[in-house]
Amino acid sequence: MEVKILNSTNNFEQNIITGARMCYNSKSDNMGPKDIALLKKLINLKHLSVLEHSSITFLIKGISRSCLAQLTRHRIASYSVMSMRYVDYSDRSPVIPSKIEDNSEALSLYQKIINKSNEAYNELIDKGINKEDARFILPIGSSCDLVLTMNARSLLDFFSKRLIPKAQWEIRELAKLMKNEAISVSSLIFGGNNE
Amino acid sequence: MEVKILNSTNNFEQNIITGARMCYNSKSDNMGPKDIALLKKLINLKHLSVLEHSSITFLIKGISRSCLAQLTRHRIASYSVMSMRYVDYSDRSPVIPSKIEDNSEALSLYQKIINKSNEAYNELIDKGINKEDARFILPIGSSCDLVLTMNARSLLDFFSKRLIPKAQWEIRELAKLMKNEAISVSSLIFGGNNE
Amino acid sequence: MEVKILNSTNNFEQNIITGARMCYNSKSDNMGPKDIALLKKLINLKHLSVLEHSSITFLIKGISRSCLAQLTRHRIASYSVMSMRYVDYSDRSPVIPSKIEDNSEALSLYQKIINKSNEAYNELIDKGINKEDARFILPIGSSCDLVLTMNARSLLDFFSKRLIPKAQWEIRELAKLMKNEAISVSSLIFGGNNE
Amino acid sequence: MEVKILNSTNNFEQNIITGARMCYNSKSDNMGPKDIALLKKLINLKHLSVLEHSSITFLIKGISRSCLAQLTRHRIASYSVMSMRYVDYSDRSPVIPSKIEDNSEALSLYQKIINKSNEAYNELIDKGINKEDARFILPIGSSCDLVLTMNARSLLDFFSKRLIPKAQWEIRELAKLMKNEAISVSSLIFGGNNE
Repeated sequence: MEVKILNSTNNFEQNIITGARMCYNSKSDNMGPKDIALLKKLINLKHLSVLEHSSITFLIKGISRSCLAQLTRHRIASYSVMSMRYVDYSDRSPVIPSKIEDNSEALSLYQKIINKSNEAYNELIDKGINKEDARFILPIGSSCDLVLTMNARSLLDFFSKRLIPKAQWEIRELAKLMKNEAISVSSLIFGGNNE
Repeated sequence: MEVKILNSTNNFEQNIITGARMCYNSKSDNMGPKDIALLKKLINLKHLSVLEHSSITFLIKGISRSCLAQLTRHRIASYSVMSMRYVDYSDRSPVIPSKIEDNSEALSLYQKIINKSNEAYNELIDKGINKEDARFILPIGSSCDLVLTMNARSLLDFFSKRLIPKAQWEIRELAKLMKNEAISVSSLIFGGNNE
Repeated sequence: MEVKILNSTNNFEQNIITGARMCYNSKSDNMGPKDIALLKKLINLKHLSVLEHSSITFLIKGISRSCLAQLTRHRIASYSVMSMRYVDYSDRSPVIPSKIEDNSEALSLYQKIINKSNEAYNELIDKGINKEDARFILPIGSSCDLVLTMNARSLLDFFSKRLIPKAQWEIRELAKLMKNEAISVSSLIFGGNNE
Repeated sequence: MEVKILNSTNNFEQNIITGARMCYNSKSDNMGPKDIALLKKLINLKHLSVLEHSSITFLIKGISRSCLAQLTRHRIASYSVMSMRYVDYSDRSPVIPSKIEDNSEALSLYQKIINKSNEAYNELIDKGINKEDARFILPIGSSCDLVLTMNARSLLDFFSKRLIPKAQWEIRELAKLMKNEAISVSSLIFGGNNE
């Protein structure tokens, strides 16, 4: 799994403060102490609508179709996902859950089936089945890539729901990587303990 | 694939008319000729926001994980999907694309791999791998069930995007079944030619 | 201000349970003790997405344009509002804030201006100004009516934000009336202490 | 009325193309002829979800409360509005509809009532009424300022609905100004004839 920021709103925190200052017709100090205090206060009081003004676009590579299904349930977000209808999937290696990786028998079984599925996918395409139907034989662990844009409010909500211990391991790992990247954009907003 | 309506807003059309009549402070004639004419006019003029007042809840059974992925991209909707983290998937037969079904060699290959995947899923579970990890080996064609609620406006949008010839066959088939059911609730709203 | 339920999803709680049971492929007991316990658990654990399957349609009468502005900021909801472009507003009496009502001097001033505005509205219309422009002279306290549909999850969110002491008095009053009505649909879901 | 862009996604078009290229696993030519052709094709085919990756933040000044009410009905957008609960409105001059401005009798009546409302607002505050209640006496034509963020897809939808002749004049004027500004960010996306 690989997570990289492709883009983020210019002056990420300042853009949010401009929205917040508008509500009270007050002056910004260009992310000086007063603006920083205001931003902290807004987050603590859960006045989160102003956080919607700034967004991050992520490149996410190598998550399973299972993780993708969970991710796209977050509806306040924009997704562009590599299409299995159009893109050849024969060369892509699937995600291996660490509990399978740590169990040599399970791992060898897993890899055997993965290989057979991949071979069958290629055979089906050779037999004239198009990609959109051949993909039905690929495993749910098949990896996919996507571009995702979420605003800061939706990101905080995503982190709060997917960084808890009960969350499934793969989406928790994704949320961790996304949070680390987001902190590089604004530690003030994303650096809090949402776990 | 099986689609059934579990629930729909009482007085489905009347509920929408009540919203529409509110805007103009006018009186309904209980779905008499004036109300029917108004509803038709609203749909023709694309004044669709009033259609949001009424919703349908569907039970959908036996769609592939691939179809589910496309379906859940429609974000103005509510989904409760059978969980592969908690539910045993060993007994569920996968969706078979008709182009594979019609090609005996492809079909026999498909079924061989499906069986191997199912066996491997059970073996992984026997080896102590939990369901949420074992599912990685199941094919994308694995079938799943869900409960879906969409309001009438979102349904019309869904039908307009997924009933066109370019739409992938499985979601087009789902959209057709959903539309047929929806017509039984309101032919006035859903009976138009959106294909 | 007047709040009345026009419509609500049939079998309101059962419809939600059907969604929840789907996730775990488990059986409902028709809102028997097991279903009630499950619904309570989902709300406590904030597994709220299943609450989206059921909705309530309210008729709301006599709120100010100011209250309407706050209300419509809740975006996961559907609104049909009496139009000031098309409906004659000359006969509608405005909302009077209780702090103005309790202060006789303020009240008499308020009523004097209200009357003058109403007269001016009628005069503008007599002078050939259309309603959509004449309304600019009416006070923000002008009352309006609307039809509102919200699902149970969005309603709980609305109540949690608008029933707190810091909320403005009019929308808090609206939220109270809506909550009372909602409790008559499901005390299990709405009867909790969200204040 | 004044509309100014405060911020827009870096590499506005490129960010969208990155999303689109992801779907097909194809290579961008950095907004060369191939990317431009792709973007045009996506808009023509109404494959608009990729447009959600880029957003614009506007500063909007001097629209009426009536225009604000219409604007905020566009729910796929983020708003930070100058608060009448906290900000002193006594000095703000209201919006004057051109049909009133062009009619000298109507104009003098309008201005008379506006002045009386403003005086009454100040008097109410002197009598101890707080701003959030005193505002009820101000006219609906009262002007307000806001910060608005919308993604490119939602902007196109807004323009398509509010630039038509039937749209109310003030929001049509707002939409025109916003479109002009948006064209300076991307004439490719916003320069089409949506009117």
